[in-house]
Amino acid sequence: MEATKQKTTIVLFSGDLDKAIAAFIIANGAAAYDHEVTIFFTFWGLNTLRKDEVVKTNKGLLEKAFGWMMPRGAKRLGLSKMNMAGMGPQMIKHVMKKHNALSLPQLIELAQEQGVKLVGCTMTMDLLGLQQEELMDGIEYGGVAAYLGDASEGKVNLFI
Amino acid sequence: MEATKQKTTIVLFSGDLDKAIAAFIIANGAAAYDHEVTIFFTFWGLNTLRKDEVVKTNKGLLEKAFGWMMPRGAKRLGLSKMNMAGMGPQMIKHVMKKHNALSLPQLIELAQEQGVKLVGCTMTMDLLGLQQEELMDGIEYGGVAAYLGDASEGKVNLFI
Amino acid sequence: MEATKQKTTIVLFSGDLDKAIAAFIIANGAAAYDHEVTIFFTFWGLNTLRKDEVVKTNKGLLEKAFGWMMPRGAKRLGLSKMNMAGMGPQMIKHVMKKHNALSLPQLIELAQEQGVKLVGCTMTMDLLGLQQEELMDGIEYGGVAAYLGDASEGKVNLFI
Repeated sequence: MEATKQKTTIVLFSGDLDKAIAAFIIANGAAAYDHEVTIFFTFWGLNTLRKDEVVKTNKGLLEKAFGWMMPRGAKRLGLSKMNMAGMGPQMIKHVMKKHNALSLPQLIELAQEQGVKLVGCTMTMDLLGLQQEELMDGIEYGGVAAYLGDASEGKVNLFI
Repeated sequence: MEATKQKTTIVLFSGDLDKAIAAFIIANGAAAYDHEVTIFFTFWGLNTLRKDEVVKTNKGLLEKAFGWMMPRGAKRLGLSKMNMAGMGPQMIKHVMKKHNALSLPQLIELAQEQGVKLVGCTMTMDLLGLQQEELMDGIEYGGVAAYLGDASEGKVNLFI
Repeated sequence: MEATKQKTTIVLFSGDLDKAIAAFIIANGAAAYDHEVTIFFTFWGLNTLRKDEVVKTNKGLLEKAFGWMMPRGAKRLGLSKMNMAGMGPQMIKHVMKKHNALSLPQLIELAQEQGVKLVGCTMTMDLLGLQQEELMDGIEYGGVAAYLGDASEGKVNLFI
């Protein structure tokens, strides 16, 4: 008989580098302890999953505007505090490297290797005009029902 | 014998439009799945519940100052990101309308129809000088004890 | 036979005065209801625990820069909203005093008296160059494993 794994979920609402790092450190930790982990990316959190490069899409003007204004991917996120026009994120990245801490792109890769389920919120994608081609590969897509299905079986359910 | 309903609680601390929308989408989703849902409004989150119109009250100067500076109700909240002096919220409202998504006032109405319990934090109301006449009808009032009573029986307990 | 206590955990990521107050009010409430409570301080949340005075340490330049830029302790935190160059925190402190609400330093003291476990995140301390001598006495230290150990046995697990 197999024991049921503990479920852990994180809603990543924020598009801040520091909060995304915290989310992935907790997610990777929980996966290492054999939890079944889901990160549900909604609103600005979806920017974490955007591809580096510009992806050609067919969008309305407002959706294009959101696309321009929002950061493209994990390497371009700002800080929730002390962003200082981009100097803060550089400082954080520098000290992380110095201490051999994994960078956000590396944390995302590790999460995928460990089987952490990354789910893009389809409702927000509709609203902000983000299309699946613009996001990383290996992502699932779902809405609030999918989130609640996982969360209501979990104990550690965080909103970040 | 009636099965016990799953309890779900959200502390809405933030006064940002986008976070309030996220809170109500999760709350309405959970209510649709027959959870017993409580949203506990504290600090800036209380602004979500303020009435549109100016309500005449008898207040001290500091309480009046807070009243002036804080947004009056769900229609006046700003965004946590890209607020751009009010242009961001207009853009979000525009795309939500275009995609037939419910607006925040509609999400609040739906929550009330679905029996989501909306609780105003009495301690913060005291501090910020908010009075019950200034908030929407159909709200309950309570403190941290009321919150913990619900949360300690729930599994999905979020702080937004 | 002794009944097992309910566990409650809070990750305090934010360095904002208002969020720290909310965290400690919930923590103290839960402790009063006999929960076993842990607050895990990470990223900017660690500033809540810094000592008032300047502590002489031997640091690299970047770590020194973080040390200078980040607020030294609970009395110096800003607000998440309406900070207004420090006027907001003064207003909040004033109304809290007027209503005989406990200040943040008093809430921290109460938490320690009630046996709330305060844990500094060692990984962030390494990154930001914060040393144990710079933080309050009576704190424990741990990483994400320590956090998950507590949280996975709890029901109320918040990220603030």
